[in-house]
Amino acid sequence: MAKNDWGTSTYPIVPGHEIVGIVTEVGSKVEKFKVGDRVGVGCMVGACHSCDSCDNDLENYCPKMIFTYGAPYHDGTNTYGGYSDVMVAEERYVVRIPDNLPLDAGAPLLCAGITVYSPLQHFGLTKPGMHVGVVGLGGLGHVAVKFAKGFGVKVTVISTSPSKKKEAIEHLGADYFLVSRDPDQMQAAMGTMDGIIDTVSAVHPLVPLIGLLKSQGKLVMVGAPNRPLELPVFPLIMGRKVVAGSCIGGMKETQEMIDFAGKHNITADVEVIPMDYVNTAMERLEKADVRYRFVIDIGNTLKSA
Amino acid sequence: MAKNDWGTSTYPIVPGHEIVGIVTEVGSKVEKFKVGDRVGVGCMVGACHSCDSCDNDLENYCPKMIFTYGAPYHDGTNTYGGYSDVMVAEERYVVRIPDNLPLDAGAPLLCAGITVYSPLQHFGLTKPGMHVGVVGLGGLGHVAVKFAKGFGVKVTVISTSPSKKKEAIEHLGADYFLVSRDPDQMQAAMGTMDGIIDTVSAVHPLVPLIGLLKSQGKLVMVGAPNRPLELPVFPLIMGRKVVAGSCIGGMKETQEMIDFAGKHNITADVEVIPMDYVNTAMERLEKADVRYRFVIDIGNTLKSA
Repeated sequence: MAKNDWGTSTYPIVPGHEIVGIVTEVGSKVEKFKVGDRVGVGCMVGACHSCDSCDNDLENYCPKMIFTYGAPYHDGTNTYGGYSDVMVAEERYVVRIPDNLPLDAGAPLLCAGITVYSPLQHFGLTKPGMHVGVVGLGGLGHVAVKFAKGFGVKVTVISTSPSKKKEAIEHLGADYFLVSRDPDQMQAAMGTMDGIIDTVSAVHPLVPLIGLLKSQGKLVMVGAPNRPLELPVFPLIMGRKVVAGSCIGGMKETQEMIDFAGKHNITADVEVIPMDYVNTAMERLEKADVRYRFVIDIGNTLKSA
Repeated sequence: MAKNDWGTSTYPIVPGHEIVGIVTEVGSKVEKFKVGDRVGVGCMVGACHSCDSCDNDLENYCPKMIFTYGAPYHDGTNTYGGYSDVMVAEERYVVRIPDNLPLDAGAPLLCAGITVYSPLQHFGLTKPGMHVGVVGLGGLGHVAVKFAKGFGVKVTVISTSPSKKKEAIEHLGADYFLVSRDPDQMQAAMGTMDGIIDTVSAVHPLVPLIGLLKSQGKLVMVGAPNRPLELPVFPLIMGRKVVAGSCIGGMKETQEMIDFAGKHNITADVEVIPMDYVNTAMERLEKADVRYRFVIDIGNTLKSA
């Protein structure tokens, strides 16, 4: 379910930043794709291509990165997202979806997937034998568990809701489950994790999470609370621990992520809905009543106004 | 000037954790040192030698690390520090002082020096051409500037006191100086630094410092404020930035640090005082009235009680 997290919206707006489809037309200079290819577009459709970040395949950190919708494009027009039956994008911002991945359940990987895959890779949390925590079991968290298991690391889900234990372990394949509000459980797990992917975007305490880390451990935030969090410095110092942020991934890495997903049969858990269900879906989202992503079947259900 | 930063003191106490002297006696199994060698002892005198940290020459992060004074030693006795005419230490915790380094001005490197050298190394802030900020110009900050210049990086001192500009640039060799309370200066320097060593142990805002970092930049805290700091998450995420802590360094790295200091003629700026000046020195320390470390000449001035 697309949502503009990035600031004030510019109307008219067409949301949608986890987009899949079939190529229907290619420009004369396109080299990577041909008509009929299964492709996807994620959170961005452009960048400057001349800064250090772009030179290092990190268009996602380019100061001039262009979001897939609601942002001014190179030509001054507004970008429009995936709630549409057609879309035009520059090939650098298009990824190939592996043949074995279903389009619907693959779509959320284009934002949720790369958001958790990139920090696992960048912060070195992919070595078999490592122990990685995942905080929050929603759209991001559930794919974080799947990717971490794909890398062969030991995974602990950390959640405020004891009711998610069965789901986390039996359905998603996590190794352990910690209730973050249970001080005894948290105490017993102190100093055991090499890294934590924190997907929670509500304000929450960092002290217990930093405590779960081993020396040199890394707490990576991928959800952005709207107020500053309290950072205790002493425990960071005493263990050379790291608190970092990470934002989606570059296009090269996004292709690597989806290829990895293909190889390991990793998809998001989705509920496919028709276009006219979207307002109901928004209400259910507010109540966290979805496991874990709604995917709109635009192709079959979008009607002209 | 030694001070027990690590908790409640156990009396009787002998402080001192930046200690230099000449070897007067060695045990039968000692291999690294002989009588007459110029040596030093820093913040720690023992660890478990069987954990991951110890195995990786990071005794400083061993959960059983033994501080140089005021801590229970292996045999259950209390450790005593450097305010003494003699000291016994296991050779693993003794470093060799390079011949060209004066003992007095070299002594503070054993804590202040390694505290800033280690994060510069570990967080990859040593490549010529890089730009490193140093927050706070005191005992730690002034040697941070010298080590960073030794590595050949561009150094900006960031301070609340405009009066320190001349000292920072003309005396210590910093390239630039920023007054952290001047929003125009801070704004102009946004996004220019690869890393920052933050030596301030008072509560202070992180937002402007995180703003000074480039994408992928690293803010390393080596001073520990006694209350949590406010951590804004969004700017970390948007630039994959890192906030980390770092605590002294392992013994192998401490030897490397002091050898590097010898090669680059790096010493602390010190004021050598006699033992009976120590209470006056404490009063002056409270007023930050020292550039930048007091060193007590124990050998010539300690009198038996």
